[in-house]
Amino acid sequence: MTGTLDVAAVDAMDAADPLRACRKHFALADGVIYLDGNSLGAASLAAFAELETAARQEWGRDLIKSWNTAGWFQLPLQLGDRVGRLIGAAPGQTVVCDTTSLNIYKTLHAAIALRPGRRVIVSEAGSFPTDLYVAEGVISTLPGMELRLEGTHAPQIEDLIDETVAVVLVNHVNYKSGELRDMAALTKKAHEAGTLVVWDLCHSAGALPVDLDGANVDFAVGCTYKYLNGGPGAPAFIYAARRHHENVVQPLSGWWGHARPFAFEHRYAAGDGMVRFLCGTQPILSLRALKGALDVWDAVDMAVVREKSIALTDIFIRLVEEKCGQYGVALETPRDAARRGSQVSFAHEGAYEIMQALIERGVIGDFRAPSTMRFGFTPLYVGYRDVFQAVNVLEEILRTEVWRDVRYAVRGAVT
Amino acid sequence: MTGTLDVAAVDAMDAADPLRACRKHFALADGVIYLDGNSLGAASLAAFAELETAARQEWGRDLIKSWNTAGWFQLPLQLGDRVGRLIGAAPGQTVVCDTTSLNIYKTLHAAIALRPGRRVIVSEAGSFPTDLYVAEGVISTLPGMELRLEGTHAPQIEDLIDETVAVVLVNHVNYKSGELRDMAALTKKAHEAGTLVVWDLCHSAGALPVDLDGANVDFAVGCTYKYLNGGPGAPAFIYAARRHHENVVQPLSGWWGHARPFAFEHRYAAGDGMVRFLCGTQPILSLRALKGALDVWDAVDMAVVREKSIALTDIFIRLVEEKCGQYGVALETPRDAARRGSQVSFAHEGAYEIMQALIERGVIGDFRAPSTMRFGFTPLYVGYRDVFQAVNVLEEILRTEVWRDVRYAVRGAVT
Repeated sequence: MTGTLDVAAVDAMDAADPLRACRKHFALADGVIYLDGNSLGAASLAAFAELETAARQEWGRDLIKSWNTAGWFQLPLQLGDRVGRLIGAAPGQTVVCDTTSLNIYKTLHAAIALRPGRRVIVSEAGSFPTDLYVAEGVISTLPGMELRLEGTHAPQIEDLIDETVAVVLVNHVNYKSGELRDMAALTKKAHEAGTLVVWDLCHSAGALPVDLDGANVDFAVGCTYKYLNGGPGAPAFIYAARRHHENVVQPLSGWWGHARPFAFEHRYAAGDGMVRFLCGTQPILSLRALKGALDVWDAVDMAVVREKSIALTDIFIRLVEEKCGQYGVALETPRDAARRGSQVSFAHEGAYEIMQALIERGVIGDFRAPSTMRFGFTPLYVGYRDVFQAVNVLEEILRTEVWRDVRYAVRGAVT
Repeated sequence: MTGTLDVAAVDAMDAADPLRACRKHFALADGVIYLDGNSLGAASLAAFAELETAARQEWGRDLIKSWNTAGWFQLPLQLGDRVGRLIGAAPGQTVVCDTTSLNIYKTLHAAIALRPGRRVIVSEAGSFPTDLYVAEGVISTLPGMELRLEGTHAPQIEDLIDETVAVVLVNHVNYKSGELRDMAALTKKAHEAGTLVVWDLCHSAGALPVDLDGANVDFAVGCTYKYLNGGPGAPAFIYAARRHHENVVQPLSGWWGHARPFAFEHRYAAGDGMVRFLCGTQPILSLRALKGALDVWDAVDMAVVREKSIALTDIFIRLVEEKCGQYGVALETPRDAARRGSQVSFAHEGAYEIMQALIERGVIGDFRAPSTMRFGFTPLYVGYRDVFQAVNVLEEILRTEVWRDVRYAVRGAVT
């Protein structure tokens, strides 16, 4: 990316963008520059349509019979395969259900049961915290297990892996810095020690090409409400490699995971394949919004998404540093595009207040304590002109120091 | 209930019904007699409205900021208190989240941790199966624990309770027979042995008055998609008595259960009160349908609901036995109204086929293997004329033996 980046240049890039037609499928208002799809993906018109059909026709009119006639029971596996296609999983290895946190619980237990005698879980201090909280929960019921963390027990996660480690739980893209790990290399390193790996794809599913099968991954989890645009709190997913299906068990054994749920048997008998990662009755309305959200992906090539994501983030970094560098912003994301996801973080002492001022001006990113401004770039609905305009707004806020106004300092929870 | 039960009599009862005005809040089509609200409650217009607002305005237009401005984060506790009011729980003891199965897992672990050294879980062979499957899952990670069942290890659950028992997991109303247990008496019996109790309210919440605080219950769980009409797979609830809040722990420790979720701390610190029963991000769209569904309850007295429920079920039993007794139907539900919930089950060799024929004629109940026809009576939208008409349809199907037609014998999954 060389040459002058002016309005004409970015408009030319938008005109040539193969994903340009995707934005019209989303409900985004004109003028909104939404750089927070890495927290809550935008709503699609297809999601609205699915939701309305599910509510008014299927629930409202057809009532109980919709469990069969509308395919409600099949949604977890059916949507699982559609998500699976986007993360390099051959059919039958992905199921959509519950939450990322619960799915971490299931996969950690599953991995530990496959590695009896090993007493260590390895993760990273810089993880999105719920991963660590859930690992603590798993350990709380398994005396003798312990948790060792990159950043606490060793500088690099690879240095913590040895024959005592049952499972490594690791984020593909870091939620805060946007740093991308080498999935194939770390998985290989773990397997050399006989250790299994659970990859958390919350910030990579739908953001970049993921090749779970190709990287020989054991388990993966992730959410569907960020880059996949499934809606607020949309159910999460689990991937388990087919080679583990026959022997895998997990303790959240509810009736949806049973081999014959409608036989109403007294004893649990785990269903085949991914069925055994299901537990209770799933929230159908939320699943149906996700079903609609996945439609737009049918026509999208993830390599094209990645190419645009890199261009968007490269340009954003370049423009922010050119136009705002003098105001004390500091890049927190790897400069090497091969080592980052689809987000860029900058640190600034006034990060919270600056973000409030940006949001007030229609540029929506988010803040992570203590001093991070986080910007997500969703290639399906963010364009080059958006990036250009966002940096101009940021520059004005920094140059005028309007962010020091007391009204921007009132804090609320931001996810 | 004496005297002739003819159309004039049931119409007079409908005219005098204090709940008659409730039906207009539901999306039920004219002519449908919906006797399956004990499986999937009917949709309300308020649920549709909430869902549309949540989808189009909050998610679609306001995007990420709706987590704060639309109160999405507060929904689990806020809806919890609204459900709590219907089950005799003072505020701050009920939270809506996840699924019944997962909430059983949490409460069983919580109870076991409060009774260290006790190695037995007691439940009932006739339970809805997921309760037993989850108990198996809990036991799978706690060596030495065992499950003892009413109907397998002893005829009566009371006979299994002694000082070795950590927790009793029991259904308030049986999903199949409709039998109602004496909550206060069984809870008292358990407490005399130092045993805690988890009550499963799936078939009693919204069906009859429940007095968790008054009965000194420890924990309860239940779903919101049956009598509470929250929508297919709507999130479930947990109740924990305030006296346990300070010491209770459960292993599904995700970030929504943390005392400071947005501090992004590395170590888990359980939040106060019911917050610590939360785990991951909740499905907001499904929660919002539930929010709408709860509106109708604001103006409803549960004692009035119970009075009508008993009248509806009494009349149904009487009319079925009068008009259909000669065709081999056999009551499976307690005849004593004080010992049953809001459903009635009849056995018949052709139960499956008869139910298909009923559904084809607009009388919607369900089937439970091997030979049960199950009819649920939701006083908010089922009237006396509905009951009268349903029995007439049943009588015709039995008298004409149309149910023997092969087209009614094709089986599909029915929930």
